[in-house]
Amino acid sequence: MAGNSFGQLFRLTTFGESHGKAIGGVIDGCPAGIALDLEQIQAELDRRKPGQSAIVTQRKEPDTVEIYSGIFEGKTTGTPIGFAIHNTNQKSQDYSHIKDSYRPSHADYVYDQKYGFRDYRGGGRSSARETASRVVAGAIAKQFLGNIQINAFVSQVGEMKLDKPYQELDFSLTESNPVRCPDPEMAQQMEAYIKAIKKEGDTIGGVITCVVQNVPVGLGEPVFDKLHARLGEAMLSINAVKGFEYGSGFEGVKMKGSQHNDAYNTDGTTQTNRSGGIQGGISNGMDIYFNVAFKPVATVLQSYETINKEGEKVTAQGKGRHDPCVVPRAVPIVEAMAALVLADYALLARTNKI
Amino acid sequence: MAGNSFGQLFRLTTFGESHGKAIGGVIDGCPAGIALDLEQIQAELDRRKPGQSAIVTQRKEPDTVEIYSGIFEGKTTGTPIGFAIHNTNQKSQDYSHIKDSYRPSHADYVYDQKYGFRDYRGGGRSSARETASRVVAGAIAKQFLGNIQINAFVSQVGEMKLDKPYQELDFSLTESNPVRCPDPEMAQQMEAYIKAIKKEGDTIGGVITCVVQNVPVGLGEPVFDKLHARLGEAMLSINAVKGFEYGSGFEGVKMKGSQHNDAYNTDGTTQTNRSGGIQGGISNGMDIYFNVAFKPVATVLQSYETINKEGEKVTAQGKGRHDPCVVPRAVPIVEAMAALVLADYALLARTNKI
Amino acid sequence: MAGNSFGQLFRLTTFGESHGKAIGGVIDGCPAGIALDLEQIQAELDRRKPGQSAIVTQRKEPDTVEIYSGIFEGKTTGTPIGFAIHNTNQKSQDYSHIKDSYRPSHADYVYDQKYGFRDYRGGGRSSARETASRVVAGAIAKQFLGNIQINAFVSQVGEMKLDKPYQELDFSLTESNPVRCPDPEMAQQMEAYIKAIKKEGDTIGGVITCVVQNVPVGLGEPVFDKLHARLGEAMLSINAVKGFEYGSGFEGVKMKGSQHNDAYNTDGTTQTNRSGGIQGGISNGMDIYFNVAFKPVATVLQSYETINKEGEKVTAQGKGRHDPCVVPRAVPIVEAMAALVLADYALLARTNKI
Amino acid sequence: MAGNSFGQLFRLTTFGESHGKAIGGVIDGCPAGIALDLEQIQAELDRRKPGQSAIVTQRKEPDTVEIYSGIFEGKTTGTPIGFAIHNTNQKSQDYSHIKDSYRPSHADYVYDQKYGFRDYRGGGRSSARETASRVVAGAIAKQFLGNIQINAFVSQVGEMKLDKPYQELDFSLTESNPVRCPDPEMAQQMEAYIKAIKKEGDTIGGVITCVVQNVPVGLGEPVFDKLHARLGEAMLSINAVKGFEYGSGFEGVKMKGSQHNDAYNTDGTTQTNRSGGIQGGISNGMDIYFNVAFKPVATVLQSYETINKEGEKVTAQGKGRHDPCVVPRAVPIVEAMAALVLADYALLARTNKI
Repeated sequence: MAGNSFGQLFRLTTFGESHGKAIGGVIDGCPAGIALDLEQIQAELDRRKPGQSAIVTQRKEPDTVEIYSGIFEGKTTGTPIGFAIHNTNQKSQDYSHIKDSYRPSHADYVYDQKYGFRDYRGGGRSSARETASRVVAGAIAKQFLGNIQINAFVSQVGEMKLDKPYQELDFSLTESNPVRCPDPEMAQQMEAYIKAIKKEGDTIGGVITCVVQNVPVGLGEPVFDKLHARLGEAMLSINAVKGFEYGSGFEGVKMKGSQHNDAYNTDGTTQTNRSGGIQGGISNGMDIYFNVAFKPVATVLQSYETINKEGEKVTAQGKGRHDPCVVPRAVPIVEAMAALVLADYALLARTNKI
Repeated sequence: MAGNSFGQLFRLTTFGESHGKAIGGVIDGCPAGIALDLEQIQAELDRRKPGQSAIVTQRKEPDTVEIYSGIFEGKTTGTPIGFAIHNTNQKSQDYSHIKDSYRPSHADYVYDQKYGFRDYRGGGRSSARETASRVVAGAIAKQFLGNIQINAFVSQVGEMKLDKPYQELDFSLTESNPVRCPDPEMAQQMEAYIKAIKKEGDTIGGVITCVVQNVPVGLGEPVFDKLHARLGEAMLSINAVKGFEYGSGFEGVKMKGSQHNDAYNTDGTTQTNRSGGIQGGISNGMDIYFNVAFKPVATVLQSYETINKEGEKVTAQGKGRHDPCVVPRAVPIVEAMAALVLADYALLARTNKI
Repeated sequence: MAGNSFGQLFRLTTFGESHGKAIGGVIDGCPAGIALDLEQIQAELDRRKPGQSAIVTQRKEPDTVEIYSGIFEGKTTGTPIGFAIHNTNQKSQDYSHIKDSYRPSHADYVYDQKYGFRDYRGGGRSSARETASRVVAGAIAKQFLGNIQINAFVSQVGEMKLDKPYQELDFSLTESNPVRCPDPEMAQQMEAYIKAIKKEGDTIGGVITCVVQNVPVGLGEPVFDKLHARLGEAMLSINAVKGFEYGSGFEGVKMKGSQHNDAYNTDGTTQTNRSGGIQGGISNGMDIYFNVAFKPVATVLQSYETINKEGEKVTAQGKGRHDPCVVPRAVPIVEAMAALVLADYALLARTNKI
Repeated sequence: MAGNSFGQLFRLTTFGESHGKAIGGVIDGCPAGIALDLEQIQAELDRRKPGQSAIVTQRKEPDTVEIYSGIFEGKTTGTPIGFAIHNTNQKSQDYSHIKDSYRPSHADYVYDQKYGFRDYRGGGRSSARETASRVVAGAIAKQFLGNIQINAFVSQVGEMKLDKPYQELDFSLTESNPVRCPDPEMAQQMEAYIKAIKKEGDTIGGVITCVVQNVPVGLGEPVFDKLHARLGEAMLSINAVKGFEYGSGFEGVKMKGSQHNDAYNTDGTTQTNRSGGIQGGISNGMDIYFNVAFKPVATVLQSYETINKEGEKVTAQGKGRHDPCVVPRAVPIVEAMAALVLADYALLARTNKI
């Protein structure tokens, strides 16, 4: 199966290149009867769009979603939801630095090798522009999920790490600053740091933490489709992601079993939650939380050496309007992918018992 | 789709509970014409089997694989390969501490909630015994992959971390010690540490690093089925895994783009390899390397408090023969899952161009 | 998996309701490097469009396809091909006879039961308008298939049956008449008959025969995904189809094995072809041929009795512009679905051997 | 995806060659909590087994199913059900007439072409022996389906056709005769005819009719996965099947819409049922009925001319113990495949609405 679909029952297929006519997708398997708030879908898209603050790319793309099907009289009909976001910012640009040479740590070289050639305009299909379609689908998945709350936020930029447990954070503050860090003080420092990095023409990596609350017990399909395995795949499929951990994660390896185990309360909840809300690949009703590591954006606005198609050394110059740090705009993408996973597993869980 | 299949073209489906009659699986889509070394398959299985050293569980299970189909005159026929490993160690055991109460940080509780009841013997389907089937399939995938070399090893146990770059290690030493750490000195320390942990009746977590070499350029299917996304899902589907990172991983978030980018040599290789052999979800021909975090085994041979099915507090006692640290035996499992992913993508890559 | 995708490697997902904003789809897995003739795609769509002759529906829909992605500098890029056909004929119509009552032998009732409500405008998703997306995808599949020739034609209308073997027909005549029957004399009789049926406000069924030539040996994936099983599924998924047979078909049941068997020539071809080009689910290089039975269109322009949502008897009147016989316009749809099946299996066949 | 799996949520994967060690399969996605009658599973298998009467193959195979997993304390656990049927009749046979030459209208030639070589013993994977695994899975699916009744029977052998509507038949008589025709008089004639054919060393085709009753409204997933499309695929995947029709089928093409349409009763049932219980690909609660055409068995016990691997003409002699007519033993296979389709769609239907 080609790689542009995600999910089994609640299933998204996306299409579109960065500078083609349109990007978009089809959501198949969305149950009938959801009263969709279309403004909420656009609002999610606006959280991801370029130009929203001084610390993100200054490209101007309105990113207006047009829904073609699957909704009637305000409700989902159970038939596929087709949608498109037309590219309106396709001015004839100068791509000479991309067309014939390979940008380091970009996908230019491997696309050429794999497919024989590539749509080089703005990165083509390998551009993170594709994730806008995911945000649309995720916004619909969120509305299907109802009470399940998904809150992602920036928890690290470069070396700057928010070391508070998520329980001490007020998620309502996430959108109050351009970094999308719910700790206002840390947010301010991160913002200043990103601005400094931007001034250098450089970029910096970061971490997004995501917390999912009110998850019913029983989501996840052992043995291969464990809930956290699919969440991990979902996150790792986002551009620039290099790592995923949930619950105690990489820190948990240092612990002894007697310390790490989560003791039960009499209602089936646990006193601690190092399991991260998932045991044996199945949600246990506790909060699910995980971290997603993003590398620094590969496009730096500096001069660099690389090779061209002929394998000759060339010097190129990074240009254009790019994000100095990808995590602020990636927060809604992480939430969208989490929503897609949970919607899919919520449907699958309906089939477990007679 | 139910969750017991992995892969699209080279596809494994597994079955079996810890203490049922047999575990096993079906490999569908394995190409015809592979001259299979059956002893090599059994040898991989022996790397995973219980009782192989003093630092792993002392259960005695021969774990002999029986292949039912798909091979004729020593070669794969292109038809599905069915196989089983009969459980020979099913003595009537005392399961009273498992049957009616829920072991902390085990899947007992969620299986009961999800399915209404569970096969409690030895953990049933949630037992890591299931991974033996993966090792069988992975051994066949390895033979299909030919020159592609997959080497996993233990790089961390508790706080003890092997800090050498993998290039300085001699993978031929991995099997020379029971820990499966290719650094003999570190291996000795880890072994002593695991023995001490075992004496306490406790357990400890660890990290496995995996290196894949001689990978052709072009494996991976954007945008959702990126090569590292599938590798991550594969690893996260292994029992006790809490995290996955590849290339620069979580450390990469601290770097600037100008430092992180991998400059090209004229032959398309790169001077550094922070990308971990994958760009845009597609292999670039450089070594693929990644880390997999394992939590400490949940079964501790100590007394603990928990709840029973009725939600009443009970005191229980961990018993049986369990691994004090899961990583030594998980090394062949990590390799097997990596082999399955690569075999699948090697087939998919045949369909990319006219 | 929701039901709006077809194919495994060459995979079409469609969306859209009869009277929504647009219908369309995504083709995922189309190999890179096909120099696409876009006019040919539109030409196929024109073969299906309403209003093309006196014996089909007189609705006026230009059905212009707009391709959004996956093509660059005239060639497929290996990335998904998104496309849409905007509905331009959405005048506010009178749907009162459809909205609250159920048309006999239509899907109105079952959609309401299954999904809770339905988009009743023009049949919504159950309308054959959806098949326009299939024709677009099939036209691209045909171009991928190159030398493989797919020729469908009308072989029966009501009792009127073309009894010549297909070898005696000149497929270049199929498009020479509005019925799409390559026998001019029979075509004329069929046309007159359909006109008479139309005058009555009635409809009539028919059969389409399809012949596929120059198929390489080896397409088809036993045991469930036999080539003819997938062809059958493909055809049965077209609106109004009631039956499928290939090779000797239903007539073959009357024969003895000694009569039915196809003897081999020394080059591996067979002297007869009752197998219909497929043995054991795998193409053998001979012509593939099959018949597809279409019921009479359910919408008759007559008065009829039915029930409304409340289960009360009501009298309704068929109206609108409908096809008196569906087979002439279904010829390109049959070809498109055959092309999609063959494209998928041509890719799968690349993975059979080492 | 390789072709040895069937179904999306209730999913069967089979393995095994005619004369290998064992055939078998894995059922994944079977809901937990079904109290399985294991004797009923074996009883279904006995309906299919060789040697049961004078008009079927006289091979002696006990075909005893062994279930390895997925059942605990008599009930399905929701985990995969692995099973095997060991081949006990593998005496070293004489395969010289099969090994080097190609039997007409068998899969020998295409397997060699597709995979490079083949397991020629008894037809290998292309043998209908594989369908025993389907019968096991179908028997479990039937138990899941509960009230839904599936009755298949032989309705035609050669030219001998049972022309009564199924409503006039007593399905309890199907098992009262070796032909599996519920009309005792016709059964006797068919039996005599098959015996005569057998005496000639020849074979004859036939038709199986299947009736499914008590189906709830709403099963089927438009647009590609229409209920009848999947039923058709299921039936066409059975060895020797050449055609499928449901409801009015090929006869329906001769009717006018005004005659063919099924008028509604006030309770949503229809006065006639030319639709065959399915409208728009979705069950409407009426009986589903369909016909499946089987060609005459290709193995005739006569001398025949064919070619060998080198493309030279050779004369061969059919031998062994084969069925003179496949339909009596195929009745449980048709039922099994119908049960698998319905079980899958019953699970899918749980996900249609919020």
